[in-house]
Amino acid sequence: MSNRARSGLGLLERTRHRIVAAWRDALGAARGALAGGLRPDLPDDDLVRLRQRIEECLVGRGGEVSARSRAARLGADYVRFDDVGRSRFLRLLATDYGMDKGALDGAIGALRGADDSGRPAALSRLREALVSPRIKFLRQFSGLKEGIKFLIDLRADLRHLAQEDPLFREFDEELRALLASWFDVGFLELRRITWETPAALLEKLIEYEAVHEIRSWADLKNRLDSDRRCYAFFHPRMPNEPLIFVEVALVTGLADNIQDLLDERAPKVDLHVADTAIFYSISSAQKGLAGVSFGNFLIKQVIDDLGHEFPNVHAFATLSPIPGFRRWIERAAARGEPLLDPSEAHGLADLAGVMDGADALVGFLRGRSWHENPATAAVLKPILLRLCARYLLIERRQGRALDPVAHFHLSNGARIERLNWLGDGSAKGLDQSAGLMVNYLYDLREIEDNHEAYTGEGRVTASNAVKNLL
Amino acid sequence: MSNRARSGLGLLERTRHRIVAAWRDALGAARGALAGGLRPDLPDDDLVRLRQRIEECLVGRGGEVSARSRAARLGADYVRFDDVGRSRFLRLLATDYGMDKGALDGAIGALRGADDSGRPAALSRLREALVSPRIKFLRQFSGLKEGIKFLIDLRADLRHLAQEDPLFREFDEELRALLASWFDVGFLELRRITWETPAALLEKLIEYEAVHEIRSWADLKNRLDSDRRCYAFFHPRMPNEPLIFVEVALVTGLADNIQDLLDERAPKVDLHVADTAIFYSISSAQKGLAGVSFGNFLIKQVIDDLGHEFPNVHAFATLSPIPGFRRWIERAAARGEPLLDPSEAHGLADLAGVMDGADALVGFLRGRSWHENPATAAVLKPILLRLCARYLLIERRQGRALDPVAHFHLSNGARIERLNWLGDGSAKGLDQSAGLMVNYLYDLREIEDNHEAYTGEGRVTASNAVKNLL
Amino acid sequence: MSNRARSGLGLLERTRHRIVAAWRDALGAARGALAGGLRPDLPDDDLVRLRQRIEECLVGRGGEVSARSRAARLGADYVRFDDVGRSRFLRLLATDYGMDKGALDGAIGALRGADDSGRPAALSRLREALVSPRIKFLRQFSGLKEGIKFLIDLRADLRHLAQEDPLFREFDEELRALLASWFDVGFLELRRITWETPAALLEKLIEYEAVHEIRSWADLKNRLDSDRRCYAFFHPRMPNEPLIFVEVALVTGLADNIQDLLDERAPKVDLHVADTAIFYSISSAQKGLAGVSFGNFLIKQVIDDLGHEFPNVHAFATLSPIPGFRRWIERAAARGEPLLDPSEAHGLADLAGVMDGADALVGFLRGRSWHENPATAAVLKPILLRLCARYLLIERRQGRALDPVAHFHLSNGARIERLNWLGDGSAKGLDQSAGLMVNYLYDLREIEDNHEAYTGEGRVTASNAVKNLL
Amino acid sequence: MSNRARSGLGLLERTRHRIVAAWRDALGAARGALAGGLRPDLPDDDLVRLRQRIEECLVGRGGEVSARSRAARLGADYVRFDDVGRSRFLRLLATDYGMDKGALDGAIGALRGADDSGRPAALSRLREALVSPRIKFLRQFSGLKEGIKFLIDLRADLRHLAQEDPLFREFDEELRALLASWFDVGFLELRRITWETPAALLEKLIEYEAVHEIRSWADLKNRLDSDRRCYAFFHPRMPNEPLIFVEVALVTGLADNIQDLLDERAPKVDLHVADTAIFYSISSAQKGLAGVSFGNFLIKQVIDDLGHEFPNVHAFATLSPIPGFRRWIERAAARGEPLLDPSEAHGLADLAGVMDGADALVGFLRGRSWHENPATAAVLKPILLRLCARYLLIERRQGRALDPVAHFHLSNGARIERLNWLGDGSAKGLDQSAGLMVNYLYDLREIEDNHEAYTGEGRVTASNAVKNLL
Repeated sequence: MSNRARSGLGLLERTRHRIVAAWRDALGAARGALAGGLRPDLPDDDLVRLRQRIEECLVGRGGEVSARSRAARLGADYVRFDDVGRSRFLRLLATDYGMDKGALDGAIGALRGADDSGRPAALSRLREALVSPRIKFLRQFSGLKEGIKFLIDLRADLRHLAQEDPLFREFDEELRALLASWFDVGFLELRRITWETPAALLEKLIEYEAVHEIRSWADLKNRLDSDRRCYAFFHPRMPNEPLIFVEVALVTGLADNIQDLLDERAPKVDLHVADTAIFYSISSAQKGLAGVSFGNFLIKQVIDDLGHEFPNVHAFATLSPIPGFRRWIERAAARGEPLLDPSEAHGLADLAGVMDGADALVGFLRGRSWHENPATAAVLKPILLRLCARYLLIERRQGRALDPVAHFHLSNGARIERLNWLGDGSAKGLDQSAGLMVNYLYDLREIEDNHEAYTGEGRVTASNAVKNLL
Repeated sequence: MSNRARSGLGLLERTRHRIVAAWRDALGAARGALAGGLRPDLPDDDLVRLRQRIEECLVGRGGEVSARSRAARLGADYVRFDDVGRSRFLRLLATDYGMDKGALDGAIGALRGADDSGRPAALSRLREALVSPRIKFLRQFSGLKEGIKFLIDLRADLRHLAQEDPLFREFDEELRALLASWFDVGFLELRRITWETPAALLEKLIEYEAVHEIRSWADLKNRLDSDRRCYAFFHPRMPNEPLIFVEVALVTGLADNIQDLLDERAPKVDLHVADTAIFYSISSAQKGLAGVSFGNFLIKQVIDDLGHEFPNVHAFATLSPIPGFRRWIERAAARGEPLLDPSEAHGLADLAGVMDGADALVGFLRGRSWHENPATAAVLKPILLRLCARYLLIERRQGRALDPVAHFHLSNGARIERLNWLGDGSAKGLDQSAGLMVNYLYDLREIEDNHEAYTGEGRVTASNAVKNLL
Repeated sequence: MSNRARSGLGLLERTRHRIVAAWRDALGAARGALAGGLRPDLPDDDLVRLRQRIEECLVGRGGEVSARSRAARLGADYVRFDDVGRSRFLRLLATDYGMDKGALDGAIGALRGADDSGRPAALSRLREALVSPRIKFLRQFSGLKEGIKFLIDLRADLRHLAQEDPLFREFDEELRALLASWFDVGFLELRRITWETPAALLEKLIEYEAVHEIRSWADLKNRLDSDRRCYAFFHPRMPNEPLIFVEVALVTGLADNIQDLLDERAPKVDLHVADTAIFYSISSAQKGLAGVSFGNFLIKQVIDDLGHEFPNVHAFATLSPIPGFRRWIERAAARGEPLLDPSEAHGLADLAGVMDGADALVGFLRGRSWHENPATAAVLKPILLRLCARYLLIERRQGRALDPVAHFHLSNGARIERLNWLGDGSAKGLDQSAGLMVNYLYDLREIEDNHEAYTGEGRVTASNAVKNLL
Repeated sequence: MSNRARSGLGLLERTRHRIVAAWRDALGAARGALAGGLRPDLPDDDLVRLRQRIEECLVGRGGEVSARSRAARLGADYVRFDDVGRSRFLRLLATDYGMDKGALDGAIGALRGADDSGRPAALSRLREALVSPRIKFLRQFSGLKEGIKFLIDLRADLRHLAQEDPLFREFDEELRALLASWFDVGFLELRRITWETPAALLEKLIEYEAVHEIRSWADLKNRLDSDRRCYAFFHPRMPNEPLIFVEVALVTGLADNIQDLLDERAPKVDLHVADTAIFYSISSAQKGLAGVSFGNFLIKQVIDDLGHEFPNVHAFATLSPIPGFRRWIERAAARGEPLLDPSEAHGLADLAGVMDGADALVGFLRGRSWHENPATAAVLKPILLRLCARYLLIERRQGRALDPVAHFHLSNGARIERLNWLGDGSAKGLDQSAGLMVNYLYDLREIEDNHEAYTGEGRVTASNAVKNLL
């Protein structure tokens, strides 16, 4: 599960236009003023005016309706800012509108001094002190149409900055906490996406799909066919924006190859004989909701739904990439870690006509055509399967599986069921996963135990077949 | 604006049945277990089992879907508890599942010791420490159908207990804070209520109306007629439960009498000539949301809506009771405060044939028939108008207007525009307001200043006509 | 099944206002003209102007959109006419805008002379000739919001006139045929009515209920409770107007008493043990659709629906009045038909202290208190049961069962299953049905045969228990 | 406006599958029987069984619910028939289930003999006699989900046969009349189609578009952009099937080139300055509704809608092909009609290096590259514009404009406003319209007069600019 790094701003820009359009009414008479609004790069003299306006919003004169209209004006400016302007705007909030440390200290002192009867008020005061002015300001967007989407996109900008500059991190964490309270999983709506769904929403799936690119409307339609399912979570205040979505294929037996699964000419599966649901793609759609987690919940709810709709379906599993696998091999080889046993190293070196087996392995994998040569593939197959089992079952960082997708499914209680040789022959599949794919199996009877074993003791559950590869 | 103290449990019981019915699916196979569930009065040995179950919920084995199903089981038990059982359940949460003070102290210490780079994590830890186990447990209800309503009703129970016993207050404040974050005004939906609204919802208006009782479906229909408007706020997760609602009459000039306004036989007002919108009733519908404020926002949004729909309507005002007025006279008289000038006192004493003017006044008002005698009414009229102006404009407690309705509208920025002699001749009107009513005027041009003056300096804005009564 | 003769014009008038309101837009600029429109009683000089306007509509200048707007103007006049005006308007259409007999004769001649290749065009011409100008004119209302309802109500007026004056009958038949083509049962939507249905629609049930009056909103709510069902047919172009509706109670065994069934305090039936669905009321809601039949189709569809929802329910039956029973006794007695055998006659005469047994019977039944005297009731019981069986099973007019309700259910293929002594103790029940009620049973296995037997040979199917009463 | 001759049966087949799927329930237990149903080519012995089943449907045993289920069985067979089977099925209906001529004669005789009091019944009997058994049988599909669509597609098959074989024409006319009564324009719903419309519906626009092919989803999205409008008519019983749709561009001044209009890279038009709505494509979507007319009504309603939405838009016009233009030139040349004056003929002959000017003209136009050579184009331009004006304004067949698109808009009351040289440079545009396009202008003030002039006297209204071309 990942969130596609999207360079093209097409969708983002369109979203921004939509947001401003939605605010037309709230902006009302103020629109005239906007014409002479803040300049896109927010130069210093505009920064002074910006500060005044934020202050007005915070003072909250005229109640929340007026405050919203002022917030909408500032938001409309933000949307029209360029990168420099946005960065300067967020920097201002980061530096000048953080928590009042004196007030926070006072609240902490009061809590410590409070007796039982004073505690409720003291706690309330501490909670209040933990809400910084910038968060109070941003909360005013909640009631604006598209206002939540605005905040999510603003946080995407903020995260981008926070990755470079620690100055923004406290602000980012505050905004994450606010969004997390609003996006409580209890408030989300699971909706099925079908070919009857509005095109404007389907188009977003095409844009947001992060695992296996949707190449065309025909490809999309095939993924929504009668032997497929697609589900997404939505928030009631953002009914047209998927938060996360999952694509499922109903098949017979565990699927082992993603190209076969996505083949538009493949015959439809007879739903009366399908016994397995394959989750072959999960994509987060909102970069600004990073750190707010929905995936586990989505998978469990979809399993529940499918179980009701298809009583014959008894196995729920993924067909997943192993996105860090090839990079791990390269890095381990570079660090000189022992990856190969002598006979493997010898065979590879021979095949490649080089001295070092690990170099040969790295070279083959970089070449991306090794799988087309049967002899090469035959040599690589047992090696890559063994290394992949090691990568998934044994390699750790800070107690977590190295591979992010593995960590996600193992945390959810899934088990590593099977490795699929040449399960993804695409350029991306070869580049990231050395062409392999893995099935994570969600067995409802053991999910709780697997989850405990992994999160508690760091123990990975896998089938014997996979363990035997080691 | 008040929340009717409702003795009959009819609606509440029905709501509870609805909640349990909605959980059928989530309860699933567990239903059998429920048959041997906890007893309604929650005796000691059941308390032990309850504790185990809460622990299981908190451990969260199997992820949120499983946790929900366990929560639903406990919730279904709670709904079937009697008063004793509920009280024992809430007491257990209040005493044993509060914040971990050690963890809180640790988090506070860590925050104090944190440098800039450590602050985001330290703040996150403090925020986490402020969430007590009982709140984590109750949050699991958010995803259950009707789960939010369950929590609101549980808080109504909790508030009831907290009024008697301080032990519950910290818990109550925590739950209030949770609900306040969920019921951010930005998430609320303003919906118009009409005669086309489902009967099941209209029936709730009849139950919840707290100011002027709705006597029949014909009375209700009259309040939803073409020259009336009714608006309510809803939360997306409780689409069938109004949070607060307001009833509006479109009239010509300020309305001065509530019985006239509610007369079902009165002719309809021609909407082309109506120039005034009278807000004659605002009722909160959810006792469990006490302390989470919507009223100000509702009024402002409705004014905004009406302004668009009726460009001819230029005045927005209430026709409000003065619910504390008669009681204040009684108490002031009992305390011997000077209420009357000598000639007034003399006149009243004469009229009543008693020695003391204040006694006479109190006696008349208790009698409830004084207004039917023209001579008596003529003597009382100037006295009551003057006292009422004093009560509303001058009397204070902790800087607030004594009268709760006055405090609400003055905080919103309204002005006291006119007192209406015999504006409410009903038993309740005579009993609470000595038959008077008041118009609070929302003049959009001065709302901000009035609000500042009142909340900042405690200064009440009133028309000259009202001031002159003093 | 009947259509309540409704004297109060309340609903009708409101409907008319609604219709005109809905036409505001279509009327558009023409509204000014309306101010000087036709007078309510349509005096002679206005009749001249009316004729001109109808001509304009028929010429159809400017296409259908313009024609509609002209039709809306005339319709708005019609709605505001008084009884005299309406009658004069309809008379004008009846006399001057009927079929062109010459054109009809021409079309018939052409058809007779046509060879095979000319027949399609000749048939098309004949069909066209059968559409009178008045029907062409009225069809222009089809596209107006509420236009269909307008035509239905206009036909109600027309039927009223046609009952008195044969002049209107051809016109009435034409309009019936037009409505019948539009209200093809295939186009109707079956919708369940519940307490969640808009109050404005529920109010119409209260008005339209024709069998057992709905006394209050509480009575209505009881009829929509979880152990009850209510279904209605709607037309897509009149989504807020029920055409016909049926009320069903789920019970155990055949219900035998309507007051018990409608008792608001009666406990709810456990749906897990209910085995019988009782159709206790069917009401047509639109007088203007008389002669367009929906009832049979409604019952069959509801049986189908209930069968899916409640697999345990195996019996589908009515609890029906026998509305013509007492009147038949009176008339038969007046005609001197032999109703009683000698011992019955003797017993009755004795009991009443009169000479003639039939007179005594008629007298008792008129008295309406006979059932409260156990001795009287004991004498009457066997006599009335026997006479009722005779009335339902044997009495005929033109091959049909005398009783209209019996005719309806027998045509549908139901069987007379049981007579219920004192099944309806209300004034209406005593007055019409001598207190008796009957269960018609819809046994799906024999419906086709019963229907054939009755419509083909006039043979009535009844249980042995009922036959034995003879 | 035309209906694309579609060879690929993709959509049709899918529709048929959808229809059968929708009947699953109605088919119910009968599904087993279907397994041994009629064979796709309907051989003679199956024809016997088919006849039996039709008889059963007509007898109508068991009422309409049973009849529907039997009809669904036959319909499901029909859908699975191949061309031969369908043709045999329709032939059976055409030959054996037509009107009962004896009954028709009897009804006609009875009508002729009827006095005034007998006429209503006689008319009713005649109307009944005009409904053939096959139509009674087909009407039973009306209540089936997708049943209306089934009948429309069946009529498309029937029309296909009727074009070859007169035997089917009477049946075709009967079915047309039935569909026309159901598709009364008053029952249609005008809906706007946007990018928010379900993809499954948008896909149908791509398939049905008959004037300017929709090349891709991007092309479609461009046609639904904010400066475009698309409207379609729907029937309440076929909510997912457009009947006819129109595409509109909002522009400044009359558009003169279709490629410019459809250019996806063209900037959006500012809606504040747009003053003209261009109807650039109208397509009928249902071949089976040929002869049931919606286009005029659609255009008028859309003009009405646009007029409300865009008060600045004052001109409503088309940008239309002249589909018969080039063919007319060819045929006229072949017939030796004088098309050119001597100097034109000379110039053309010179340019082409041939003897005859008309031959040269025909040759150039066949070549399809003449417009790329400026010299050639310069010679052709005045000639083609003049000929086109003649073709549109003067040429007639049976009193109608020769060009079908011209006839449609002139009948609606539009005026020929402008000819656009090289308005459509596509292969189709060159092939059909010699690259020209025409604007038909809908001027609301003169629509009625134009319509009268054209339909009454055959007089075409055109601008002076166009007239001057002659």
